[in-house]
Amino acid sequence: MGGSLALALRRSGYVGVLLGAGGSPEDLGLAAAARYPAADGTAPVFDRCSDDPAQLPWATVDLVVLATPPAALPEMFRRLREWIPATTVVTDLASVKGEIVATGAALLGRRYLSAHPLVGGERHGFAAATGDLYAEALVLLTPGAAGADERALGLVPFWEGLGCRVRTMSPAEHDDALAATSHLPHLLAYAFMASLGDSDALRDLGGSGLRDFSRIAESDPALWTDILLHNREAVRRRLQALRHTLDDLDAALAEARAPALEEVLARARSRRQQFHFPPRT
Amino acid sequence: MGGSLALALRRSGYVGVLLGAGGSPEDLGLAAAARYPAADGTAPVFDRCSDDPAQLPWATVDLVVLATPPAALPEMFRRLREWIPATTVVTDLASVKGEIVATGAALLGRRYLSAHPLVGGERHGFAAATGDLYAEALVLLTPGAAGADERALGLVPFWEGLGCRVRTMSPAEHDDALAATSHLPHLLAYAFMASLGDSDALRDLGGSGLRDFSRIAESDPALWTDILLHNREAVRRRLQALRHTLDDLDAALAEARAPALEEVLARARSRRQQFHFPPRT
Repeated sequence: MGGSLALALRRSGYVGVLLGAGGSPEDLGLAAAARYPAADGTAPVFDRCSDDPAQLPWATVDLVVLATPPAALPEMFRRLREWIPATTVVTDLASVKGEIVATGAALLGRRYLSAHPLVGGERHGFAAATGDLYAEALVLLTPGAAGADERALGLVPFWEGLGCRVRTMSPAEHDDALAATSHLPHLLAYAFMASLGDSDALRDLGGSGLRDFSRIAESDPALWTDILLHNREAVRRRLQALRHTLDDLDAALAEARAPALEEVLARARSRRQQFHFPPRT
Repeated sequence: MGGSLALALRRSGYVGVLLGAGGSPEDLGLAAAARYPAADGTAPVFDRCSDDPAQLPWATVDLVVLATPPAALPEMFRRLREWIPATTVVTDLASVKGEIVATGAALLGRRYLSAHPLVGGERHGFAAATGDLYAEALVLLTPGAAGADERALGLVPFWEGLGCRVRTMSPAEHDDALAATSHLPHLLAYAFMASLGDSDALRDLGGSGLRDFSRIAESDPALWTDILLHNREAVRRRLQALRHTLDDLDAALAEARAPALEEVLARARSRRQQFHFPPRT
């Protein structure tokens, strides 16, 4: 997420200073070596990369984008509070907001404004970074209870400048919606694959349907454990509704009630047709 | 499925007679108008199309491919028995086999050999037909209890000539495997979308993960009611295993047991990585 954002910034014409921190040694090496086309040939994407964020020149930083798993954020907020000037804006890209936003707002105040760009994929690390990851994406901004100050609202033109659309909602609205549109689908794809048991005899028998349905089950298990636990109340509510639907479908199958089955399938299809999804790239 | 097969046959160099029957009036019109590149310009893909299969010149037919939903097959077998010569081979492309194969073998004998090419998509009708649908696909042949005769085994080179790999398994093995790799994923994608309830507020919030996970929920509800009911015993067994996994995950979420959650997610990911899926076209 962070590497793709740096590439997207350079592609959009940003020629200012970019500092990178964190990631594995391999990621940092790839990030430090990455270049982009500039007026006089090529230029480094990152002006400086470090495995120790404490070493960066924090007094010069206008905007901090935290592209880390949710569990790492509270400690990052605490450390940033000691490093950054009062004028620096802080955002994160986490997929879950409730406690994260409350903690960030408590520690950093109204110059902290959390963001969730609805992009991603099952791959991670700088090797998977791409400058078009954010193109035409929807970015959800989720201010804390006190709102965001003028400087933090600079994030609206920031994301729009990368070709994104921006929408604002509360952290609770975000978490309830994302439980439905992202967290429960991930849980289901994982649960489905885990339920197959010893699947050696099946591994050549998956078509394009299973390939696409289960792609998100290759997402990072540690990251998704973190996301699911942070949003476990909303995820469990959505899971409960799904289990009721599965009970109904199982009963319809057991009693071979074709009209009941077809009614649920047709309703599902019509719901799916109402969604606006990003185009396949 | 039938239109794509006709296009694939022409692409593979087949210049013999192709007859088409069934489909909606629109489909038949599109099929009748379709052309392919031939030595002297273009030629019609189908030599003749009819909305009434009884009118086709059955005495001249070497191979019948039934590309219809499972529920329509028993009646087709019965009618074919009156129309076709004893030397004609019959196959179908149904996604479910048990009763279908038993009925076909009882009515048509060993010259009937059922096939399931692991291809498809949520779109149907001739407008969705494409000559590369079958390229590099795996085709499962599922002979009835008495096996297949020499003529029916001509289906092996038939599919290989279209670039497919062929594997033979029993109808019961087929139905158990496909319950896992196709039927339950469809049921789950449908159940998930149906469980969202009134989803107006969510319809802009789906990213590429939900897009791919839920694609198969746009499949034809009548066709899938038919498939799921034909294979309901195997589907219900696989659904039961999934429900146990969901119970475990729900308990791990309720008690915030991160290691238990991550263990299931990591196991799911490793299973998914063992699958060989068709490439995205």
